Amino acid sequence: MKKLVKFLSLATIVSLGLMGCGGNETQNTSTTAEVKKLNWKLVTSWPKNFPGLGTAPENFAKLVNEMSGGRLTIKVYGAGEIVPGFQVFDAVSQGTAEMGHAASYYWKGKMPAAPIFTATPFGLNAQETNGWIHYGGGLELWRELYEPFGVIPFAGGNTGVQSAGWFKREINKVDDLKGLKMRIPGLGGEVLQKLGGVPVALTGGEIFTSLQSGAIDATEWVGPYNDLAFGFHKVAEHYYVAGWHEPGAMLEFTVNQKAFNALPKDLQAIVEVATRAVNQDMLDEYTVRNNAALEQLQNKHNVELKTFPRDVMLALKNASKEVIEEQKANDPTFNKIMNSYQAFQKQVTQYHNLSELEYYNNRNQ
Amino acid sequence: MKKLVKFLSLATIVSLGLMGCGGNETQNTSTTAEVKKLNWKLVTSWPKNFPGLGTAPENFAKLVNEMSGGRLTIKVYGAGEIVPGFQVFDAVSQGTAEMGHAASYYWKGKMPAAPIFTATPFGLNAQETNGWIHYGGGLELWRELYEPFGVIPFAGGNTGVQSAGWFKREINKVDDLKGLKMRIPGLGGEVLQKLGGVPVALTGGEIFTSLQSGAIDATEWVGPYNDLAFGFHKVAEHYYVAGWHEPGAMLEFTVNQKAFNALPKDLQAIVEVATRAVNQDMLDEYTVRNNAALEQLQNKHNVELKTFPRDVMLALKNASKEVIEEQKANDPTFNKIMNSYQAFQKQVTQYHNLSELEYYNNRNQ
Repeated sequence: MKKLVKFLSLATIVSLGLMGCGGNETQNTSTTAEVKKLNWKLVTSWPKNFPGLGTAPENFAKLVNEMSGGRLTIKVYGAGEIVPGFQVFDAVSQGTAEMGHAASYYWKGKMPAAPIFTATPFGLNAQETNGWIHYGGGLELWRELYEPFGVIPFAGGNTGVQSAGWFKREINKVDDLKGLKMRIPGLGGEVLQKLGGVPVALTGGEIFTSLQSGAIDATEWVGPYNDLAFGFHKVAEHYYVAGWHEPGAMLEFTVNQKAFNALPKDLQAIVEVATRAVNQDMLDEYTVRNNAALEQLQNKHNVELKTFPRDVMLALKNASKEVIEEQKANDPTFNKIMNSYQAFQKQVTQYHNLSELEYYNNRNQ
Repeated sequence: MKKLVKFLSLATIVSLGLMGCGGNETQNTSTTAEVKKLNWKLVTSWPKNFPGLGTAPENFAKLVNEMSGGRLTIKVYGAGEIVPGFQVFDAVSQGTAEMGHAASYYWKGKMPAAPIFTATPFGLNAQETNGWIHYGGGLELWRELYEPFGVIPFAGGNTGVQSAGWFKREINKVDDLKGLKMRIPGLGGEVLQKLGGVPVALTGGEIFTSLQSGAIDATEWVGPYNDLAFGFHKVAEHYYVAGWHEPGAMLEFTVNQKAFNALPKDLQAIVEVATRAVNQDMLDEYTVRNNAALEQLQNKHNVELKTFPRDVMLALKNASKEVIEEQKANDPTFNKIMNSYQAFQKQVTQYHNLSELEYYNNRNQ
């Protein structure tokens, strides 16, 4: 316990300005000189080397290798190689692997509040999520949530606004969502259910064949760059770009607490800072590659870009409010974390409407 | 020359996915074991520890100290401590200091294309700038530009959309800009000049007294968080929030090329990855602190939030286009870099109008 408390207070310091990932320099130097080599396993929820999601943990491993001068080598495993994609958290908690890369909403069965740390329908976008996590108290709440499992979370990349998804039938009115079997995880799935749909939990690698066979009628995944890679346009005709359910989906690196505590201070700092660099790097990649993929979908595959009718978007927004209120009432931890999230969202929306949104409009005029 | 070419190709690899900042692990391990201690100086264009801009290089130095186990200690100096704020680039080029933290547009007298790497009027916002730099070819062009001076640039933080600024008189029509003496650097200054204004170059620490004495009629600086810290509301009545001239101002870390090349591979990786982490961290901080400062300006200091009339914003946009076209015609390097920037802006705007902007609107409806 004492070690964890030490790390948590450290995490607080880090979140207040990236200060202090390790101890003081004199102590560390001797540690460095030992040149003890460590090998870690990192399990993921993605197909091995899947663009963006799967390449991010590979990049992380390379950065750690290089910064540590080879003292910490991390081997990355795709979903199913050591454990299935939905068992990444358990594997890290039990020490089967020292690290994981996944999305927190996959653990909502274990912790109802976990999905908040991936995305909230009509909530924060990528830039805002990073703000809340690192300067708005989000990271401390996240660490508190995972602490009983002996797992330490770090922000692990962001996809930006995700697409509403691919549908085998057109969505013209709210009633069209009734009975719709759709792959949609997290709070978005609860919202769909509220409007009569049937959310289905599938990892990425399972979606295409389920859509092809008709086991599901629709899916969301990420956005043009990743959706093109899976080829959803081949099996679902209607593509809705403008998303609502994951306005800035954050991935997560998780580290087994005992393994982390056993690292010398300089390697702890290296692991932490590498997650931070990769967190930004993934968003940079999506920002650049989504539009190129969108153009390919339109020009090469003749995909028509659609948007939900206004009343469908409004129904989703109202249902999202209901779902969030229900979850707040049902789970005190969800309530505590969501109160922090909502207070921040109110603040940041005020400023971003005057700055980022106003700028987009002025640029377009 | 050979060493630089090696680093540039390395930079290319890094920009394609944060791979490979150093050499291979076996080589590095022996380097690590030497425990040779290095001391570097980092000079900045900001008052010592100025919120955000000045604390970012301090955070960077802490991260490097911790990740290197004390092998690389970096001491940060405020503007004027070793060299004035506008001489940071020369100091790094000449090796007076190993590193600098500043903004590229301060060097436009030396390199007309340099301002593009801070911000372009009606150009990319923070998320888009990070995309262009790290996955869109921007970093390679930037390194090419600074290479003749023996200086290597890294993205060094971003403020998000900057405020249009503080004015001693109200701006009701385009003609009100005529004769206006305004502190506004980079391409924004050229745009003001085109509309009859007089851009003035001042570092941050010089602005308040110039505004107070009437030496200037107006200033832009950053946004609510930093503007409140300087107290501009005490000396200029009219605050225009929605900005146009620096939609995502990127700061820069610069490293003396010889000093960088002399580092062992693992310390090179540590320096590079720490810049990347701080680049994200600064934006996180501004995202959280701007709105709190805005509320303080409104509620405690009774500042009224204003926006330029539509025709003023349009005149600024048209003048921006003219300035950019003129600079492209005058300088082949500006032309080459701006062509890359504009091609990327066209692409990313298409996607962000469908995703980020559409999402802001759906969230607000």
